[in-house]
Amino acid sequence: MDLNSDLGEGFGAWRMGDDESLLAIVTSANIACGFHAGDPAIMHRTVRVAIERGVAIGAHVSYPDLRGFGRRHVDLPNEEIAADVLYQIGALEALAVSGGAHVAYVKPHGALYNEMAVDAALADTVVGAIVSYRDSLPLLSLPACEVTRSTERLGLPNVSEAFPDRAYEPDGRLTPRSRPGAVLHDPDEVARRAVQMATDGTVVATDGSIVRLDVQTLCVHGDGPAAVQSARAVRAALTAAGVKLAPFS
Amino acid sequence: MDLNSDLGEGFGAWRMGDDESLLAIVTSANIACGFHAGDPAIMHRTVRVAIERGVAIGAHVSYPDLRGFGRRHVDLPNEEIAADVLYQIGALEALAVSGGAHVAYVKPHGALYNEMAVDAALADTVVGAIVSYRDSLPLLSLPACEVTRSTERLGLPNVSEAFPDRAYEPDGRLTPRSRPGAVLHDPDEVARRAVQMATDGTVVATDGSIVRLDVQTLCVHGDGPAAVQSARAVRAALTAAGVKLAPFS
Amino acid sequence: MDLNSDLGEGFGAWRMGDDESLLAIVTSANIACGFHAGDPAIMHRTVRVAIERGVAIGAHVSYPDLRGFGRRHVDLPNEEIAADVLYQIGALEALAVSGGAHVAYVKPHGALYNEMAVDAALADTVVGAIVSYRDSLPLLSLPACEVTRSTERLGLPNVSEAFPDRAYEPDGRLTPRSRPGAVLHDPDEVARRAVQMATDGTVVATDGSIVRLDVQTLCVHGDGPAAVQSARAVRAALTAAGVKLAPFS
Amino acid sequence: MDLNSDLGEGFGAWRMGDDESLLAIVTSANIACGFHAGDPAIMHRTVRVAIERGVAIGAHVSYPDLRGFGRRHVDLPNEEIAADVLYQIGALEALAVSGGAHVAYVKPHGALYNEMAVDAALADTVVGAIVSYRDSLPLLSLPACEVTRSTERLGLPNVSEAFPDRAYEPDGRLTPRSRPGAVLHDPDEVARRAVQMATDGTVVATDGSIVRLDVQTLCVHGDGPAAVQSARAVRAALTAAGVKLAPFS
Repeated sequence: MDLNSDLGEGFGAWRMGDDESLLAIVTSANIACGFHAGDPAIMHRTVRVAIERGVAIGAHVSYPDLRGFGRRHVDLPNEEIAADVLYQIGALEALAVSGGAHVAYVKPHGALYNEMAVDAALADTVVGAIVSYRDSLPLLSLPACEVTRSTERLGLPNVSEAFPDRAYEPDGRLTPRSRPGAVLHDPDEVARRAVQMATDGTVVATDGSIVRLDVQTLCVHGDGPAAVQSARAVRAALTAAGVKLAPFS
Repeated sequence: MDLNSDLGEGFGAWRMGDDESLLAIVTSANIACGFHAGDPAIMHRTVRVAIERGVAIGAHVSYPDLRGFGRRHVDLPNEEIAADVLYQIGALEALAVSGGAHVAYVKPHGALYNEMAVDAALADTVVGAIVSYRDSLPLLSLPACEVTRSTERLGLPNVSEAFPDRAYEPDGRLTPRSRPGAVLHDPDEVARRAVQMATDGTVVATDGSIVRLDVQTLCVHGDGPAAVQSARAVRAALTAAGVKLAPFS
Repeated sequence: MDLNSDLGEGFGAWRMGDDESLLAIVTSANIACGFHAGDPAIMHRTVRVAIERGVAIGAHVSYPDLRGFGRRHVDLPNEEIAADVLYQIGALEALAVSGGAHVAYVKPHGALYNEMAVDAALADTVVGAIVSYRDSLPLLSLPACEVTRSTERLGLPNVSEAFPDRAYEPDGRLTPRSRPGAVLHDPDEVARRAVQMATDGTVVATDGSIVRLDVQTLCVHGDGPAAVQSARAVRAALTAAGVKLAPFS
Repeated sequence: MDLNSDLGEGFGAWRMGDDESLLAIVTSANIACGFHAGDPAIMHRTVRVAIERGVAIGAHVSYPDLRGFGRRHVDLPNEEIAADVLYQIGALEALAVSGGAHVAYVKPHGALYNEMAVDAALADTVVGAIVSYRDSLPLLSLPACEVTRSTERLGLPNVSEAFPDRAYEPDGRLTPRSRPGAVLHDPDEVARRAVQMATDGTVVATDGSIVRLDVQTLCVHGDGPAAVQSARAVRAALTAAGVKLAPFS
């Protein structure tokens, strides 16, 4: 099993999350590429530490929205989205190559991630752009969504992820953040769910039913001390349960 | 001989120069990478047309200075300049790869170009960054300056350029733009100088002396109708003189 | 009658439209405030020329979208839109005050303009922000839309505009740009329509019916030589018809 | 005596310093205006809390350098610096007016602050811009520097500040940050120095000599928990020493 997390999300003098701690926990780093966070110098430093620790480098591509941290919809023509995605992947690739590595996968961020999951045309735009660049580059997404269908259609490897700290609906979707209980805060509970996801391929949904989750990576968050503690608990519990952690890529 | 020109220097809804005309004249296109001009969509379109016409793709890297068009000094630490240069080259490379090509050379822009010519430490920073990315990627510069010395020192191919529409001092340097007569406007005269540069490897300096210019490419400008006319005259005169035009790369 | 036009829509080294010519034609200048176009130096220069020529200064406020020229929807919370609008008005006001004048009105730009016309909550957000700043500052909009209703509700002066170079539907709305004939290009026809709008308060709609347009200002465009010619024809025809041109403010 | 601090220095999702705590300590808030930090929504929120607490609102104007946090030199023509300063003051003023207040003073930030102290032409540019906007608006600076001379020359009120947590040279200048001991970290010592500055108008320099400091405000920092603790100690010590704290404006 793989553990991924969002990293390098500072900008200039600003920092976000505890990169140092997370890079000792995860096996795959979703590195911001300058459009929602991350300037070239921060990307360069994050890439170097990831390479040192054997953490896989993922391009965390976003709509161009520094002020909104990539969380809001921007109404762009498809041609522009495709160019933006290629631009970001390439920028990170050059920094990775300069350190002796390569971008190992792509994970869209924020609004782009959410919209691609439900918008087939948008998914095809991004998947098509990646295929035109390197058709062996895995794209990380929710399981069983428009992205997985698009990667199948256009011929790109897909990797699906689950969120140990998020509640799931009986149909396998994430409980919207607006609902109470959508995000779990108890590190032990989050760790237990991670183990079940990794060893059993299932999660207990909000109605108590057991839902199948076919995923190759678990996403942990690093924003705030509680989050890092939770990520650490996930890693410890997985290791204790005999799950071998390694980059999926 | 190669003819290079700055291209793709619009941003969003704004345009600069006559890209369409120039892409039918030059053999190498210095394509802006988003830091002084050029957004990903413009880069993508410029790359596609360049590929169609067999024009070589160069990364026209700059200080981050959209509002100043990369013409002014920004006081950046070397680590940041290296990361910025890699970021821009990689961004353009992904767009080139998506169209079936590669970045064939790097040409710094504006203040960065001018400062590298006289600042050995800055030249080493940029040259070192490129070497760490791909040590066979040519760097375009003035002849016999800190950049040529740095590329020799650090092991990177260098390509030197001359400007048919600029006056030269007896020591082989460009006459500063602030002096009268620094820029030549007569297309015929510019074309004659281009032929002499290409066939004889020399230029007539401001004092009438003949100066040796060891260059592999000539830079033509595309800003304004007179400039395009001048660039066309250069190409026609070179062809008439039997000079074969092709990308140096 | 007042003639307004969008001005100061360059950015850094880029230019858009023929500001010099338009500032000799219009009586009110919608000056870009840095969010879709216009940097402080361009704003400063445009303000100075407007003051010299007795042209009223309007704040042409926009969504933050330099790359999209303010033409695309950005999904912002209302609190942020209100702050953005105040920020832009104040920035232009300081430059106007520095030249001995004041911002005389506000005209939203692009996507914000279009969305406010049909979205009452958005209109209230912008109108409320302006009321909190200066409740005597007129807001320019389409006639009989959500903006006019909002200004009435919240107590802000409204000024309505018509477009002599745009086709109108029988219900008084603009024919969408996507339809053939939506934009008129013949300067003489545009000028005739302007005179009818100014003297009769009517326009001939696409079905030949005559529609009442209760407006205090006519918007002319300055992008491209044909547009400036058209704007000049409008001014000449209005003057010939005895319409007195002066800022509405 | 007045206590001032830099506030509102977040951007989008990023935060810098503990604004909440500082707004309960200081009497004057230097609010970032969007060029080195601070977007309109953050400015709006900071202004509202400042007004609620009776804290004076200062425009913390900067070179345009979000990525460098305004700490690095940008080579701008004077015309552009003047326009940038006016733009920022006006933007903050509109947000202040919307809350029932006004910008009470201007304090340049980072590289601009440092360069104005030693560059008379730059000081005159900024002072001249402020004079053209409102010639009663105080400008905050170091004592006895090019800014104080410029304000005297051009007729603008000046307010000088001292730094209780910084070492001073025998000639009254700040010890450069690069030297050991340049920044004091012990809250008690910082508080003692603040009291001496406020009650005696002096500071003990690095060589033990006593230096006169003619200042109307003390600057405290809010970056990090130690800094807030130090600022609190300064306020407590000043109050205990019978110094009345109030905005200078």
